[in-house]
Amino acid sequence: LRHSPIRAVLLTGAEIDQVAGLLTLRERQDLALHATPATLAAIADNPMFGALHPGHVTRHALSLAETFSPVAGLSADVFTVPGKVPLYLEGDNPEIGESAENVGVELTGAGRRLLYLPGVAAVTRAMRERMKRADAILFDGTLFTDDEMISLRVGDKTGMRMGHMPIDGPEGSLTALSDLQARRIYIHINNTNPILIEGSSARRRVEEAGFEVAYDGMEIVL
Amino acid sequence: LRHSPIRAVLLTGAEIDQVAGLLTLRERQDLALHATPATLAAIADNPMFGALHPGHVTRHALSLAETFSPVAGLSADVFTVPGKVPLYLEGDNPEIGESAENVGVELTGAGRRLLYLPGVAAVTRAMRERMKRADAILFDGTLFTDDEMISLRVGDKTGMRMGHMPIDGPEGSLTALSDLQARRIYIHINNTNPILIEGSSARRRVEEAGFEVAYDGMEIVL
Repeated sequence: LRHSPIRAVLLTGAEIDQVAGLLTLRERQDLALHATPATLAAIADNPMFGALHPGHVTRHALSLAETFSPVAGLSADVFTVPGKVPLYLEGDNPEIGESAENVGVELTGAGRRLLYLPGVAAVTRAMRERMKRADAILFDGTLFTDDEMISLRVGDKTGMRMGHMPIDGPEGSLTALSDLQARRIYIHINNTNPILIEGSSARRRVEEAGFEVAYDGMEIVL
Repeated sequence: LRHSPIRAVLLTGAEIDQVAGLLTLRERQDLALHATPATLAAIADNPMFGALHPGHVTRHALSLAETFSPVAGLSADVFTVPGKVPLYLEGDNPEIGESAENVGVELTGAGRRLLYLPGVAAVTRAMRERMKRADAILFDGTLFTDDEMISLRVGDKTGMRMGHMPIDGPEGSLTALSDLQARRIYIHINNTNPILIEGSSARRRVEEAGFEVAYDGMEIVL
């Protein structure tokens, strides 16, 4: 019989990158889907996600005020992060700000903490407090430089306009996260980002600063 | 620079299996998207597909009456096939019938003909005429037996209810396509279908009847 080992899914937003994978989990197998009310609404409004049979895929609204346990032995704490609503739901002038449309997750298990932050426009004081106590931080690595997509002529938006702070530069994450003890791993890396190319100067910069670059199939042991 | 060799996409319907892959083609690269007005409407109604930038992904409404050329050297002829509207757009009692929601394609190039028929509830006389002149037929192989999903307890629908004729049985495609000269290749195979298991009796039945079972990365030379 067909089977998936995935028992629970926690969404940090409804951006296509975050939710399209649900369409490959649309079998009749029990699955708990956790997301903020804003993200659950985006999914409920889209008829394709009706294929996630409600008798098997239970929707759970995340509270920003409470820690919960998605699977035994693991607790999750969800918090807002400066960012943006999903591209396909934005209006003409989307604001970059903190809302339940874009959250981060702090996972705790066996005394270890991991932060998952795929969409970050800025590092707040509250985020810094969480990062200081984390053992690993999976951090938004969308672009290396803010105007990367414009200078490569593959887009007309800066990273900040898309809700992503760059890696490089005085406002970049390489500087903002430089003094942390945690393993720092870049995720959500756009295909224009030169850190994807082994041996590139951008990749060396990141590695020499002690950051890692995530890859498909990566396992993280803490 | 990022690049995809895909220049044109022809959709035979708006079922998730047919359209979800578009979400991985949502870069700013020129792409022609061909579909019937019914399928284009399903995509236009879904905000996620707005990510296919209209300045780069041009929508082309397919006429059922005209042959067209999606890329140089290839002509395509689209025709209705007995089947069903997409699951996520169906009402309480979807009818199985012929409409522009579910089409087949006859591709012609260098004097060779290939038929692509991923959703087939029944073989009509018009389809038989096309099949007789084809060099290869990619045919709906969703289920081996009509009640397969029910007897495996992974679903409550028959294949016919889903708009797919089974492979086996007096009403099945193994019999319906038995006298054709073309290469006959099963595609769109559900993960409950035992023809996926090499050496299974179902797989042997299919192979001994001269049918092939498609696989990821298959190349077909005619």
